[in-house]
Amino acid sequence: MYFKVSKKDFLNALTVVSRAISTYSPLPAFSGIKIEAGDNVLTLTGSDSDMSIQTLVKKSEEVSLDVRDKGSIVLEAKYILEIVRKINSDDIEVEIIDGSLTKISGQNAEFKINGMKASEYPTIDFNRPNDVFTMKSDVLTQIINQTSFATSDKETRPVLTGVNFKADGTKLECVATDSYRLAKKMIEMESSLNFNITIPAKSLAEVNKTLTDGIEVQVAVDDKKAQFIIEDTLIQTRLIDGVYPETSRLIPLSFDYEMTMDTHDLLGAIDRASFIKNDGVSVIKLTMDETECVLSSRAIEVGSSTEILNSASYKGGHLEISCNGKYVFDAIKALNGQLVKFSLCGEMKPFIIQSVDDDSVLQLVLPVRTYA
Amino acid sequence: MYFKVSKKDFLNALTVVSRAISTYSPLPAFSGIKIEAGDNVLTLTGSDSDMSIQTLVKKSEEVSLDVRDKGSIVLEAKYILEIVRKINSDDIEVEIIDGSLTKISGQNAEFKINGMKASEYPTIDFNRPNDVFTMKSDVLTQIINQTSFATSDKETRPVLTGVNFKADGTKLECVATDSYRLAKKMIEMESSLNFNITIPAKSLAEVNKTLTDGIEVQVAVDDKKAQFIIEDTLIQTRLIDGVYPETSRLIPLSFDYEMTMDTHDLLGAIDRASFIKNDGVSVIKLTMDETECVLSSRAIEVGSSTEILNSASYKGGHLEISCNGKYVFDAIKALNGQLVKFSLCGEMKPFIIQSVDDDSVLQLVLPVRTYA
Repeated sequence: MYFKVSKKDFLNALTVVSRAISTYSPLPAFSGIKIEAGDNVLTLTGSDSDMSIQTLVKKSEEVSLDVRDKGSIVLEAKYILEIVRKINSDDIEVEIIDGSLTKISGQNAEFKINGMKASEYPTIDFNRPNDVFTMKSDVLTQIINQTSFATSDKETRPVLTGVNFKADGTKLECVATDSYRLAKKMIEMESSLNFNITIPAKSLAEVNKTLTDGIEVQVAVDDKKAQFIIEDTLIQTRLIDGVYPETSRLIPLSFDYEMTMDTHDLLGAIDRASFIKNDGVSVIKLTMDETECVLSSRAIEVGSSTEILNSASYKGGHLEISCNGKYVFDAIKALNGQLVKFSLCGEMKPFIIQSVDDDSVLQLVLPVRTYA
Repeated sequence: MYFKVSKKDFLNALTVVSRAISTYSPLPAFSGIKIEAGDNVLTLTGSDSDMSIQTLVKKSEEVSLDVRDKGSIVLEAKYILEIVRKINSDDIEVEIIDGSLTKISGQNAEFKINGMKASEYPTIDFNRPNDVFTMKSDVLTQIINQTSFATSDKETRPVLTGVNFKADGTKLECVATDSYRLAKKMIEMESSLNFNITIPAKSLAEVNKTLTDGIEVQVAVDDKKAQFIIEDTLIQTRLIDGVYPETSRLIPLSFDYEMTMDTHDLLGAIDRASFIKNDGVSVIKLTMDETECVLSSRAIEVGSSTEILNSASYKGGHLEISCNGKYVFDAIKALNGQLVKFSLCGEMKPFIIQSVDDDSVLQLVLPVRTYA
């Protein structure tokens, strides 16, 4: 194997596939990146068995690539990334010189790295599932940003560590919950499909890092895996087994109280109160009347805070509701709108937070009981 | 106690004194900041008993301060910093409302924090030592940046965790060593003094953070403590007990070999080789001839690197020398010049690295034996 490739494109491809590689890999081979040099194309693969990423470097007018000798090798991800990142040269040459000893060189620097034969790398099935739909990259980014923060980080109920994607005709519902809060995003698809799958939040985070603005992304799913095809990159992830809980009946449909407020002001007020913690949790209380809304918090060891929410406007009778400040903060931040609307049913009932301009996304938070 | 102060100046003063506060303080009182409100001045104190910082906020044309009621209080550093940092107001009011319960308010936000009586805060002796000299802030920054990285981070020989300051007349020598490398900076003082003290590197790092460009710093020392007076801030640190080793005889005076090279190129070459490690240490080998200088490294499990140092010019016979790459990297970085000069005596002899334009600073590195 011998090829010469532009540093920029090679580094970019190595960075993309290395996202699949975990530091604590069960199989030693998975700490490497498989590099295959074919006719005018390099195929790079990284995997941790749960998630696999494959990307191509194709010779083109913009991309300089010269494959003089076809072949393949597996190189330790951290070494090859370090070398290519730091090498001070426009082009990089890669050559197998002896068995699996590989020479990487550029300008005056030359490295010889012990690789592994590509035949020892596990076989990964990259076959395309049948259910395929297309969405704009910014829509996929929105789905991920507006839901995945609400997944659970505990392994006690594995299905809650993923985002549930449920397609019913052209309607796609994406839901995440850790059972104390819930985030739901609704999308209209161009194709009509039926599926109900749960994708690990960790995989979606890596998809998000690979997305660039203004492109079309293909998504292919079956009941075992999901594939995201982002230009020359394919990200494949296993799904989470288990039945996702039916969440629609948790979401209230009619409300007695409504508070609207400037997003930036409310985030500031919650942030200011966030250091007042009981057992590591910052509980905030909203005391709402049509004349005044107040955000307060209290912890015996620390002290208390109160802040009048000047930009709030409220409809309904007197209401006091307490909840985890971080959940409300995360939810409002994810909505990413200028004005937020709280729709409430009562002191101990779940309430909904939405952006005033965008009803495709809904955040639900459960209140907590306080004795303060 | 009641005062109103501009947020900017109060936050700045809190940030400065909080640098003395350690998260793992032996005394609970030391996790707080003592605030004393006097006639048109606030005095803030933070300490971890090894190091203490006191700073003043004085009413002036630029600094708005209104002390309506004199008094003092100790407030938990992390809470008062968090409140003042996040409060959305130009001015902040601080008032003791009940015993040690303190109200901090600005715009619509109001916090009540449980403080501690100032009388319960340990007494710190801020008396000025007799030996006083003055230096420009950028000279003090240079001393710290060019030496303290070479101190030891191991407590086995405590005296090596500090920088030794030795004044003999108007000559001030500042030396740091961890016994594998040594850094030495020589300064001409305006006053004539005699002392030999060792200041903890940790304290010098905090002094460095507090320094601003273009000011005069007063330094006062005796055999127990050192004080740095930086405008309205006083940083006081204990000294390290024990006799600092005599290092001057370690430094060779005549050399048989000399290599000069561009700093940036050499830093790049060492950095590129730095991932090739044996037992966590990156050992580099310099192979020098008048025709060519080469930097190489090798680790059985990883592989090897070689790089021709194009910008090097060398005088002397064939020489191969191996050393810890990080030590050479740190030393060259600290010199901060455009061209570095290596002066060498032989394969297993300590060598010296200096900036071509500045002989006030000297870096010494011990070679290592390799069998590669």
